[in-house]
Amino acid sequence: MAGRFVTFEGGEGAGKTTQIRRLAARLEVEGIAVVTTREPGGTPRAETIRDFILSGQARALGVEAEAALFAAARADHVATVIRPALAAGRWVLCDRFADSTRAYQGADGADPDFLGALEAVAVGATRPDLTVVLDLPVEDGLARIAGRGGGPDRFEAETIERHRRRRAIFLEIAAREPQRCVVLDGRGSPEAVADAVWRTVRERLIEGAR
Amino acid sequence: MAGRFVTFEGGEGAGKTTQIRRLAARLEVEGIAVVTTREPGGTPRAETIRDFILSGQARALGVEAEAALFAAARADHVATVIRPALAAGRWVLCDRFADSTRAYQGADGADPDFLGALEAVAVGATRPDLTVVLDLPVEDGLARIAGRGGGPDRFEAETIERHRRRRAIFLEIAAREPQRCVVLDGRGSPEAVADAVWRTVRERLIEGAR
Repeated sequence: MAGRFVTFEGGEGAGKTTQIRRLAARLEVEGIAVVTTREPGGTPRAETIRDFILSGQARALGVEAEAALFAAARADHVATVIRPALAAGRWVLCDRFADSTRAYQGADGADPDFLGALEAVAVGATRPDLTVVLDLPVEDGLARIAGRGGGPDRFEAETIERHRRRRAIFLEIAAREPQRCVVLDGRGSPEAVADAVWRTVRERLIEGAR
Repeated sequence: MAGRFVTFEGGEGAGKTTQIRRLAARLEVEGIAVVTTREPGGTPRAETIRDFILSGQARALGVEAEAALFAAARADHVATVIRPALAAGRWVLCDRFADSTRAYQGADGADPDFLGALEAVAVGATRPDLTVVLDLPVEDGLARIAGRGGGPDRFEAETIERHRRRRAIFLEIAAREPQRCVVLDGRGSPEAVADAVWRTVRERLIEGAR
């Protein structure tokens, strides 16, 4: 049986990385083989593109170019990591995926039709079975990442307004695609959020599949 | 009436720029309004991407990223220059277009399906009415550009083998799409080639349209 593809989306500091780690651990307890990965990145080539974009160097090329670079990185990631893992029956948990391009480059003014066409290039038929949107007020997320140390990257260092627009796009996507997406409140304790994630995964992907 | 979209393709030193200038002059004599443009580039944003790619900086990101950047530049060029000019009834003569991505990034190993999907993103319905492939042996073209002075750019500075592969892809595209493409021998004098271009344009786009 093919594995399941679960993506985690949300703004800065929403807790995606933590929740992926926790979900992976729970799945492994159930005897499910899991691959965790992240975007942008996930392959050597895509990590090179990631570094280039997050350093801010791609910015001068325009938001469409940035989106196109994400698409190229994603295509490599899908072809060399995600699709083979799913085909081998593993579950793939991915920290950010195509919805992040819609939210981030969309909030930066890229044409949604252009982004949609790029998504088709990058993703093909490999769409997530479940997308968990970890939602919390922008200020809460930024306060969390401020505590991490290290300077902000190109996307963290944006105006509050821009962060709010991204959040709105994530919520819009989830509202438009309720069968794929679930919005969970990211403000709870890591344990509480992990419980909510696990309930969703069990209901939608494990019990529903039996 | 919408204008006509003519692209010129071919390897380094094939004479594309010269022939576009000559064709534009002949069309203007006929009272046809012409816009000449080039790729990569053609808009401020696309020229920024052009400089980045031709400097060789994009290379480290991989051939798919390079192709994606070309697609982003092309999308901007099509939307802001080519499509509006055609809609206003002008003819557009473009020095390189989507076939160059197929030939160059294809010769560099990019997956043809990925390139085809990107082409759809960038070009949409704005496909050339006529593509003139100026063909000549690789050595002849390189000898011409060696005489121009200035160092070679990222694409000029390639092995002969790579240049040959690009030429083969251009010829394959033309063979597969004879209604859109014509292959002209680029070895003749500029006047002789210009005459051949003009005969083709007259037959295919002017007399045929009457």
